[in-house]
Amino acid sequence: MTTAELELASTNAATQETNATTMKALVYHGPGKRAWENKPRPTIHEAGDAIVRITTSTICGTDLHILKGDLPAVTDGRILGHEGVGVIEQVGTSVSEFHPGDKVILSCVTACLKCDFCRRNMYSHCRHGGWILGNTIDGTQAEYVRIPQADGSLYHFPVDGDEEAMVMLSDILPTGFECGVLNGQVKPGETIAIVGAGPVGLAVLLTAQFYSPGAIFMIDLDDKRLAVAKKFGATTLINSSDGHAAHQVMELTEGAGVDVAVEAVGLPATFAICQAVVAAGGRIANVGVHGKPVELHLEKLWDRNISISTRLVDTVTTPMLLKVVRSGKLQPRKLVTHRFAMNDIMKAYDTFTNAARDGALKVVLTNGAPCR
Amino acid sequence: MTTAELELASTNAATQETNATTMKALVYHGPGKRAWENKPRPTIHEAGDAIVRITTSTICGTDLHILKGDLPAVTDGRILGHEGVGVIEQVGTSVSEFHPGDKVILSCVTACLKCDFCRRNMYSHCRHGGWILGNTIDGTQAEYVRIPQADGSLYHFPVDGDEEAMVMLSDILPTGFECGVLNGQVKPGETIAIVGAGPVGLAVLLTAQFYSPGAIFMIDLDDKRLAVAKKFGATTLINSSDGHAAHQVMELTEGAGVDVAVEAVGLPATFAICQAVVAAGGRIANVGVHGKPVELHLEKLWDRNISISTRLVDTVTTPMLLKVVRSGKLQPRKLVTHRFAMNDIMKAYDTFTNAARDGALKVVLTNGAPCR
Amino acid sequence: MTTAELELASTNAATQETNATTMKALVYHGPGKRAWENKPRPTIHEAGDAIVRITTSTICGTDLHILKGDLPAVTDGRILGHEGVGVIEQVGTSVSEFHPGDKVILSCVTACLKCDFCRRNMYSHCRHGGWILGNTIDGTQAEYVRIPQADGSLYHFPVDGDEEAMVMLSDILPTGFECGVLNGQVKPGETIAIVGAGPVGLAVLLTAQFYSPGAIFMIDLDDKRLAVAKKFGATTLINSSDGHAAHQVMELTEGAGVDVAVEAVGLPATFAICQAVVAAGGRIANVGVHGKPVELHLEKLWDRNISISTRLVDTVTTPMLLKVVRSGKLQPRKLVTHRFAMNDIMKAYDTFTNAARDGALKVVLTNGAPCR
Amino acid sequence: MTTAELELASTNAATQETNATTMKALVYHGPGKRAWENKPRPTIHEAGDAIVRITTSTICGTDLHILKGDLPAVTDGRILGHEGVGVIEQVGTSVSEFHPGDKVILSCVTACLKCDFCRRNMYSHCRHGGWILGNTIDGTQAEYVRIPQADGSLYHFPVDGDEEAMVMLSDILPTGFECGVLNGQVKPGETIAIVGAGPVGLAVLLTAQFYSPGAIFMIDLDDKRLAVAKKFGATTLINSSDGHAAHQVMELTEGAGVDVAVEAVGLPATFAICQAVVAAGGRIANVGVHGKPVELHLEKLWDRNISISTRLVDTVTTPMLLKVVRSGKLQPRKLVTHRFAMNDIMKAYDTFTNAARDGALKVVLTNGAPCR
Repeated sequence: MTTAELELASTNAATQETNATTMKALVYHGPGKRAWENKPRPTIHEAGDAIVRITTSTICGTDLHILKGDLPAVTDGRILGHEGVGVIEQVGTSVSEFHPGDKVILSCVTACLKCDFCRRNMYSHCRHGGWILGNTIDGTQAEYVRIPQADGSLYHFPVDGDEEAMVMLSDILPTGFECGVLNGQVKPGETIAIVGAGPVGLAVLLTAQFYSPGAIFMIDLDDKRLAVAKKFGATTLINSSDGHAAHQVMELTEGAGVDVAVEAVGLPATFAICQAVVAAGGRIANVGVHGKPVELHLEKLWDRNISISTRLVDTVTTPMLLKVVRSGKLQPRKLVTHRFAMNDIMKAYDTFTNAARDGALKVVLTNGAPCR
Repeated sequence: MTTAELELASTNAATQETNATTMKALVYHGPGKRAWENKPRPTIHEAGDAIVRITTSTICGTDLHILKGDLPAVTDGRILGHEGVGVIEQVGTSVSEFHPGDKVILSCVTACLKCDFCRRNMYSHCRHGGWILGNTIDGTQAEYVRIPQADGSLYHFPVDGDEEAMVMLSDILPTGFECGVLNGQVKPGETIAIVGAGPVGLAVLLTAQFYSPGAIFMIDLDDKRLAVAKKFGATTLINSSDGHAAHQVMELTEGAGVDVAVEAVGLPATFAICQAVVAAGGRIANVGVHGKPVELHLEKLWDRNISISTRLVDTVTTPMLLKVVRSGKLQPRKLVTHRFAMNDIMKAYDTFTNAARDGALKVVLTNGAPCR
Repeated sequence: MTTAELELASTNAATQETNATTMKALVYHGPGKRAWENKPRPTIHEAGDAIVRITTSTICGTDLHILKGDLPAVTDGRILGHEGVGVIEQVGTSVSEFHPGDKVILSCVTACLKCDFCRRNMYSHCRHGGWILGNTIDGTQAEYVRIPQADGSLYHFPVDGDEEAMVMLSDILPTGFECGVLNGQVKPGETIAIVGAGPVGLAVLLTAQFYSPGAIFMIDLDDKRLAVAKKFGATTLINSSDGHAAHQVMELTEGAGVDVAVEAVGLPATFAICQAVVAAGGRIANVGVHGKPVELHLEKLWDRNISISTRLVDTVTTPMLLKVVRSGKLQPRKLVTHRFAMNDIMKAYDTFTNAARDGALKVVLTNGAPCR
Repeated sequence: MTTAELELASTNAATQETNATTMKALVYHGPGKRAWENKPRPTIHEAGDAIVRITTSTICGTDLHILKGDLPAVTDGRILGHEGVGVIEQVGTSVSEFHPGDKVILSCVTACLKCDFCRRNMYSHCRHGGWILGNTIDGTQAEYVRIPQADGSLYHFPVDGDEEAMVMLSDILPTGFECGVLNGQVKPGETIAIVGAGPVGLAVLLTAQFYSPGAIFMIDLDDKRLAVAKKFGATTLINSSDGHAAHQVMELTEGAGVDVAVEAVGLPATFAICQAVVAAGGRIANVGVHGKPVELHLEKLWDRNISISTRLVDTVTTPMLLKVVRSGKLQPRKLVTHRFAMNDIMKAYDTFTNAARDGALKVVLTNGAPCR
């Protein structure tokens, strides 16, 4: 079959499925418990909703946190997942920017666009949204998902797009870019250190290069991940397992430290490295999700003219990222290491859970017809 | 005598004194020990030096810290003081912007203007200067002072200036403005909280009003200082002695918190208040000098889109502040509560040491003829 | 009657009126022709619409331009007016932020909040809105108006608000602030020149003071308007009727020119003044509506490090302006010189058309019960 | 000879030459007249001076303008040239950052660092400098040059530097970057148009890529230059000789226009293209030197939310550019098309004067021993 025929077939299948009332989904059943099981297919609840048939999704480190029980807001029965690409099945009466049949990128953050936070481009704190998908409402690791505030939470899939690339725009690329690169205010010629070479740290690495930094130090415990970082553009690799990472950075910078230190792990020890290596006049951009307080050395930093920023991704840069991807200056597919059919999501989770062993970065899941 | 005659007399006196080789100065002799004693009059050491006859000086909270022994870099025999107004006696061969007889404001920070930090407007980290006056070189609580890098460290006294007002430009006003207001990015209509109503906190309060914030909460333990803050423009006063300051701020802001929280004390407890009251999307601007680490609640703040900034004053805004003072929009004399002849500096220190008891904010010292 | 009773009566009246199908409105009938006549009362057309009963409106200089026939897009039969305060009668099904009975400020710019321009805070170029009220759709000089994209185009009236003050937020204050002050990047201590002391120039003058400029030169042909400017905070008045305004500004600034020159007229001659007085490193902010090209002296300006900006008001600063008004730092009522009942709008237009003769700035129109 | 020996020989030669009192230089003798002739060797005049032995220089389009008589400030007898790399022979007593023997890059702009403009990073308007080299004082197309304000006007040559690359930092790269890219505020993914593919336009093209724009349209009359632009990263080439360049840009952008339009020619017609293609919300950055006024279409642009900027290069980004060159992200040697010994500078001028015919971009001149 040609691509067109495949798509037609896929559309027909979808149409048939539309009459069904159940679907398969990855469901959380309390700490450590997940199942790929039948769930009712979502329907329009509110005028701003869209129902999207998922064609591609992926698993986020946050999903593993949920499965550990770290996020008590996520309750038994919740469908996980907040990333995806799909096709709109149905829209509510107030949705104006999207129509059934439109191919879309789903944003991990839901934005009403109307509240005071959305008006200030802080969609993450939207009074009617924020990060709710796969958290307080059902998510994208399923055949269908309901997207509230669809006009603010979906993006048109570009005509020449690639699903594997585009699904990286749901969360990981805007997260790395907004929390790490924009908050870090990376400038041409600057020296930056990224602590943590996991998927998010690598997203920082890829998007930091939009601004032509002069040197990028990548710091991680895992040589395999560092080797990936090298391929992705890191100029210096530092394995921090000997506890001397900060020392090395200071030596490499002749005592000056780095202009930007990005924390992409979420632990006191890695935040401590950032504090130790930030130059006078530099910036610490926190990307990691932290579960504990950290010690802030104001007795050393009070007179160093530094700044520290935190941020939950707002996904306000999605239009910009789309343009950069389309120009060929960013290849998000680089982040994909494993591919599974959505039906094999239980195995996909096994792989992602053992990311270090398996060298997994992003694990892509596809529903139905294979994506391009 | 008319003012002109007075000035002439003063000039003559100065000329006579020029022949002398000693002068009086406030000298540090180790923790707890200070004396008003004879010292050699300073002379030109380097081509960029200027010798300034001090007409007005003042005492800073930092001077008290030195006297407690908190700053070990300050050694026995050091003349204290880093604020002052005076008249140039002599300049080195490379000084081009100032001439003998020029009346000048002394900046607490010495700037070569040539190094990489000065080029980036971070005079505080100047490779040939920074805060050295009354710290690693002799300071301004004396009859004369040597100012290195004079072209970068002095400002012309405005023709219509007032010495008591202008001496506030040496340190306290740029400190409040740069570290608190500019770093806090105060915007029209915003709500700000200033923790600490001492002289520096009040300087934040005065200069924050350049940007027309909608509400300014002033937080302190001392009702007298809060009463001053009220006069200076604070819209809400919060006495934090009951430990409920943060709670009160949250109630007053209906749970939102403040756009800008300025820490102007330098203690873990006051920094904690800032963390507790900063709104999502807000900024914490640290002004206080800290001696200990603080606990940073990243487990609560990681997703709040906030920033924290630190800064040693750069005094890069002195020209701007001069313009605002001259326009009448800022009356720095408000900060002056006590006046002494320089000869009575030992008493002035007693008063300033008991600032709370005496209601002292800035204590001004004058040499020779009374200033206007 | 108490205020509560009055409001009740007013509500009852409104309810009765709700059953009516016609209303009175100021209708444009081609160049030079306007009438206060019966028109069908507007109804909900689209899900995002709101019907607002106008309680206060005003006349804009642009309305006079329309009446001269300068805006051919405005056609015979159009109800004029794009400013107003009112009470919501009815909302479409997708309006979520407003409900019948809510008192609101109407923005002169309609914003869908969803398109690419709205996402970039350029509501003026909204793909489904922009300035359409009283232009390509019926406006606010009527008893009722239909507001499309209501969630993006209305603002809640503050509980302690004053209608006369708040109606200035529909257009004139955001116009002066966004196009003149924000685009001009006014900073504390700076010197600014505002060319044109009409209502918009005065709005620039009022809102420029949010940033504590050191000096504000007001330039106009009319001494009466300059006298008003003096009351509103201008520091220097320059009557430009002798053709020497630019020369005077250069003398007053000792040849330096001004940091910000705001053009608030819309003519080649006034734009020429701005070019002549802008300092090296300065900014020209254009607020005026221009009908002809101007000569840009790039042969003099190419190496002067200046910028020139244009802008159609976006009304994105309405929330900020609301906060500043509520804090008491801005008294928009100052701009109101004449008051009429809406029924007398034909007379109000006569007065506003002869603004110079009558000393008119903003002419306020009220429907029904008198506003507070 | 090894490189070390060569350098030693060169130093010895230099030492010998130091005793001479004359040197060869390219001298302007009024419109159309230039000669390579003997001139007195420069000596220290002021404490801030340095005498630099030129090892590499180049010719700028501005030099041709001078030769046409377009810059009357340049008088008979003036040595031309404002770009160069060399070795310091001698420094005045107040020079602190450089010493004899230091290899340096000369900035085309002289900066005292002390005046109000230098403090604001506007070295171009330095009250004691600005563009004076080869203009109001003798320049760099000679064996030696006197550099006033040496500490602010020289940069240390990097240890691993290449003279041909580094001489591009004297003027052309900071000009393209500051006036075109920084003033144009180029952002990732944006569409930019550069009008003029001469050396400066190409410098804009090279440095714009620091910010990862999505598309770069290069517009010129000359297909050879466009072909170079293609190699340098332009994504679309537009030959404007048919007068339809603006039309083509609008078609290519589906009527939207470009985010940034850079004028790199200096003529009314090319500035007109920029006005015609700038998108709503876009920026026009003027780089060209203009000799005549241009028509500014405010009647079309007043409501388009655009900005226009002008700038004489400040060379404040030289440290940043040095870092980017050292990181390998910018290869300035690409701009060099022709090489001559300094002795053959008369021929070099012939070549550069016929740049179009000879496909010349930058013509490099070397004194004595080959560079590197």
